[in-house]
Amino acid sequence: MNINYLDAIALSQKIKKQEISATNIISQFIHNIEQQNPILNCFTTILKNKAIEQAENLDYKITKGEDTGVLTGVPFAVKNLFDIEGVITLAGSKINQENAPATQDATAIKKLKAAGAILVGALNMDEYAYGFVTENSHYGATPNPHNLSRISGGSSGGSAAAVAANLVPFSLGSDTNGSVRVPAALCGVFGLKPTYGRLSRTGTVLFSNSLDHIGGFTRSVRDMAAIFDILQGEDKNDPVCTSLPPQLCFDKLHEDISRLKIAVVGNYFQEGAETEALEVVETVTKLLNINKIISIPEAHRARAAAYIITACEGSNFHLQNLRSRPQDFDSATRDRFLAGAFIPNTWYLQAQRFRRWYRDQVKELFQKVDVIIAPTTPCVATTLGQEKMMINGEEILIRPNLGRFTQPLSFIGLPVLSFPILRQNKLPLGVQLIAAPYQELKILQVATFLEEKLRKL
Amino acid sequence: MNINYLDAIALSQKIKKQEISATNIISQFIHNIEQQNPILNCFTTILKNKAIEQAENLDYKITKGEDTGVLTGVPFAVKNLFDIEGVITLAGSKINQENAPATQDATAIKKLKAAGAILVGALNMDEYAYGFVTENSHYGATPNPHNLSRISGGSSGGSAAAVAANLVPFSLGSDTNGSVRVPAALCGVFGLKPTYGRLSRTGTVLFSNSLDHIGGFTRSVRDMAAIFDILQGEDKNDPVCTSLPPQLCFDKLHEDISRLKIAVVGNYFQEGAETEALEVVETVTKLLNINKIISIPEAHRARAAAYIITACEGSNFHLQNLRSRPQDFDSATRDRFLAGAFIPNTWYLQAQRFRRWYRDQVKELFQKVDVIIAPTTPCVATTLGQEKMMINGEEILIRPNLGRFTQPLSFIGLPVLSFPILRQNKLPLGVQLIAAPYQELKILQVATFLEEKLRKL
Repeated sequence: MNINYLDAIALSQKIKKQEISATNIISQFIHNIEQQNPILNCFTTILKNKAIEQAENLDYKITKGEDTGVLTGVPFAVKNLFDIEGVITLAGSKINQENAPATQDATAIKKLKAAGAILVGALNMDEYAYGFVTENSHYGATPNPHNLSRISGGSSGGSAAAVAANLVPFSLGSDTNGSVRVPAALCGVFGLKPTYGRLSRTGTVLFSNSLDHIGGFTRSVRDMAAIFDILQGEDKNDPVCTSLPPQLCFDKLHEDISRLKIAVVGNYFQEGAETEALEVVETVTKLLNINKIISIPEAHRARAAAYIITACEGSNFHLQNLRSRPQDFDSATRDRFLAGAFIPNTWYLQAQRFRRWYRDQVKELFQKVDVIIAPTTPCVATTLGQEKMMINGEEILIRPNLGRFTQPLSFIGLPVLSFPILRQNKLPLGVQLIAAPYQELKILQVATFLEEKLRKL
Repeated sequence: MNINYLDAIALSQKIKKQEISATNIISQFIHNIEQQNPILNCFTTILKNKAIEQAENLDYKITKGEDTGVLTGVPFAVKNLFDIEGVITLAGSKINQENAPATQDATAIKKLKAAGAILVGALNMDEYAYGFVTENSHYGATPNPHNLSRISGGSSGGSAAAVAANLVPFSLGSDTNGSVRVPAALCGVFGLKPTYGRLSRTGTVLFSNSLDHIGGFTRSVRDMAAIFDILQGEDKNDPVCTSLPPQLCFDKLHEDISRLKIAVVGNYFQEGAETEALEVVETVTKLLNINKIISIPEAHRARAAAYIITACEGSNFHLQNLRSRPQDFDSATRDRFLAGAFIPNTWYLQAQRFRRWYRDQVKELFQKVDVIIAPTTPCVATTLGQEKMMINGEEILIRPNLGRFTQPLSFIGLPVLSFPILRQNKLPLGVQLIAAPYQELKILQVATFLEEKLRKL
């Protein structure tokens, strides 16, 4: 049976109907991973034996007629900043190699396993999640499965590339300033950054506390909804995790979206981008029949403030190592952490104060609109090792600018889905679907509509 | 009729029974204020005409049999950082004299007025609330009514002294590190600093956003309960104000307190204090028959962290003026603000991280105990102008050390009542009654018990 490119739900259904065994599925995926990882460099850890054991256990339960969960037998992998029991949580660093192995799985992993999914490994990332390229000086770069000379984007580059290359049907990553959405767009997969505080971060290595989110990568909207539904719920061990009740989305994806007011965002979000990045926004705008353009005020300042908060909070986490062993960091992250440590507190406080103002402004916008459309990245995946690029005749640095459209949104915790646009003979791009806090359902419904429209084209 | 030293509830009852008119009461109080303020220097603004007008209006309603509220005809005054419609909000500064008058009353004032209370003026304070002495270089010092050569404490010194001198039966102040509790203790009145976020701060000048609380001064526990009940309630204009429902206390003050576990706190809270400050704790301990001693871990670090957060958040608010016109600040506050502006962000972030740890530690303590007893200040009111004092053979600075027992508690937003201990031929002192967040009722019940015990002695 050709299991290639089936999504998680389809795989799980086949396994539960006993058309194929979980053990067979997992063996095929692990075989694939072992074969391709030397080239794709997505995985930093492969959990072969544990995964097969879990699959055998599931198959036994299925034959006994037990309910084994929505994701029965579906392999998945996580950015290596998620704790995996018995594995050292690297967070892309060399320094963390000295840590003891984690004593339990991250909460998100526990929930997915309880729904029948099978963890097959940990994935490459930028050191301590501080980057947009996944060119890690300790563990190597993760090339883009669509063109091996290009980047996957980052910092969850391994997570996006693994799904794009079908090494797993879905994966988890984290997003601080765009670290789910940027690689999702460049690798042509779905990437969801939910509302800040909506999903538990327990058992993950933080980068910047007030900006960090966990998120998922999939190849279908329904997979994303299924995972999002499973991951929701209060967690008393995570001080920022919401106590609001979950809002399950999976069964509501096909509801009529004509009730939703959708707008495309102009100004800042249409500047400093390649023409093709704006063209895919135009494609989506047409499919959705949108004629409303709105403006998010002071988005450039939001990006500046996000930079300051990231550098300050990030450097505070690593202060002791920055003082005692700076040579052990990836130089790309170290220099920014060091600079962050010297920022006066008043910059940080001013950035946080601006944040409250900006949040109120954007909240007002959502009185008039339900979903906002914006490009995810200003360009397709750039070449590995490339430092600068030309956009509109201006030479700019790639690393900081890949997040120019994602940063002003995660800054205030808005839920955003990067919707992949796959094109003939071109590299993929992404379009951000953005909603007010806790309105993931609206985004997923619009994405379902778009997914079907594109399938029929 | 001698209205001297009646509490607010008693005054209001007399007015509502028409034993005396509100106009008569207010005239007498205003007369007193005008007579005594040249010496006591509590008031920076006296609202004579408006107050009389409001009183006449109330008297008219009373004769018509209307319900005029729990505090009908009771005069009160507020620290001059509360907005009063038509008055410039000074916040103890010279710089703010240039501001336009406030266009509406602070939320707390609106609520008290709605309950029948009559605002008669604004009260002296340390500049921008940054101090424990109320020796204001622009508006003069507020001497202690018990001994005019002594300080009232601060920063809400005018609020405490006005109540102690019976210029008003109650007043409002604010507490960041002890600015309600310290002057309450030194002036011998009740001072309540409720749970952080419990009462709306809308219409007040902030000093340090994550530490600021508003609070009240009274001469009876029932007055404090009445005011606290009136001030509770959600305020959508104050982003830190709780949405939890109010818990009304006034009718529950006399419930049996034998159900409550009460402990005195040792270690840090018994060091660096004059013997007499510990003796009043001993007095309360005996009256309550307490034999349990507990320890709050790392209280000295909590104080250090509170200093850092105060200096950083405070200086951020005033940054522009500190840059352009430092000479217009009170030198006592300016130099600390300037120092705060240069603190690296990582000190601030580390202090905030420690704060979360410390909050969790103290939360644990409250699993085993309901109310904790500690001294309010390490000594009685010191002499005006005095900079240093000897405690246990060690010479220490007065200004920073007056808050040594209050800072580690407000740091994590715990509700605290400073209970006044008045002594024959000695200056007053205070004892802090401390509870877990949102447990003001327990504190007020213990205070009611103590108040009655002391009355019978």
